[in-house]
Amino acid sequence: MRVAVPFDAEAPKTRLSPVLEEAERAAFARVLLRDVLATLRATGREPTVYATAALGDDVDAAVEVDDSALDPLVNGLLAEGPLAVVMADLGVVTPGAVERLFEAEGDVVLAPGRGGGTNALLVRDDAFRVDFHGVSLRDHREIAGEAGLDVTEVDSMRLSTDVDEPADLVEVLLHGEGRAPEWLRERGIRVAVEDGRASVARE
Amino acid sequence: MRVAVPFDAEAPKTRLSPVLEEAERAAFARVLLRDVLATLRATGREPTVYATAALGDDVDAAVEVDDSALDPLVNGLLAEGPLAVVMADLGVVTPGAVERLFEAEGDVVLAPGRGGGTNALLVRDDAFRVDFHGVSLRDHREIAGEAGLDVTEVDSMRLSTDVDEPADLVEVLLHGEGRAPEWLRERGIRVAVEDGRASVARE
Repeated sequence: MRVAVPFDAEAPKTRLSPVLEEAERAAFARVLLRDVLATLRATGREPTVYATAALGDDVDAAVEVDDSALDPLVNGLLAEGPLAVVMADLGVVTPGAVERLFEAEGDVVLAPGRGGGTNALLVRDDAFRVDFHGVSLRDHREIAGEAGLDVTEVDSMRLSTDVDEPADLVEVLLHGEGRAPEWLRERGIRVAVEDGRASVARE
Repeated sequence: MRVAVPFDAEAPKTRLSPVLEEAERAAFARVLLRDVLATLRATGREPTVYATAALGDDVDAAVEVDDSALDPLVNGLLAEGPLAVVMADLGVVTPGAVERLFEAEGDVVLAPGRGGGTNALLVRDDAFRVDFHGVSLRDHREIAGEAGLDVTEVDSMRLSTDVDEPADLVEVLLHGEGRAPEWLRERGIRVAVEDGRASVARE
């Protein structure tokens, strides 16, 4: 099955600005992308990155430059047959979690993200289309239901964690198994407890 | 195996105050507790609630009133043999997720919560003790490691989601399979999208 990893090369990770400078955010987005690609490769898959701009030589995958928005990009790919889509910022994903996505049965397999997102999906029926705006998980359930398709949801914390905000870095530091946690630690970013809640601080 | 569900009957869910009044928060905490108990019962387990104060007749489980803090309470129970502990506010937990906890191998099985918490654990070796302060997941890994115990972590979004803040209600509304999502909807609480992020609003 084809595996697509969409990547926004131009405006990455603005909500991490309390902790990372602009150039760091761009670099960190690529660290996360490389971790996701390595995880997919570790399961024997050959991902293709669909990037909004050229990436240079620093990712170990086929790269297609396509500045389409996410929905038309993915829907165009879906028209060509079965497809898995994995977001580029799943900072704690592991080969085991990826295998659960690929092994799940159903016409459509959804990996819910925190806050109603869809962090990964696998589509085996061409009647499905994506809509990543708003509460995409709910929309994807509805689209599949209207098309009479069987939907399976994968219950994985690792797939549900995308990295958008400083609090998400806690998850990367505690659970990440790629290069991302080390990258953060090298920049002095640590888990810190404030009012009983875990957050991050930078030394 | 004994299954303990600790419950703070006196100061529940303060961080939900932007959405729920004090009496509603107390009521909602009991709705969540009852959902967790029903989920455990659906897997054939007989949970015991350890409550800081008497609960009246409204829960379907044995209730022990014990005003100890969480750590001494659980460590006292651990001294008596193998034990599972499941938090009372896991608002999207299902029988399938609970089964994954019980079926996991290891001397100690940890279900990580968002933000470094430990939302459920299962202990088969009396060398382990708990420490729920701070980043408890990290502490529990260390305590197990120092005792030479095998640790397994369960990768479950449903176990990782405890309900503390308004954003967590999004998860309950989208994924909850007990009474809690209906209880919220009856009070006009809905998923709302703001700046592209899912949150809740009250009508």
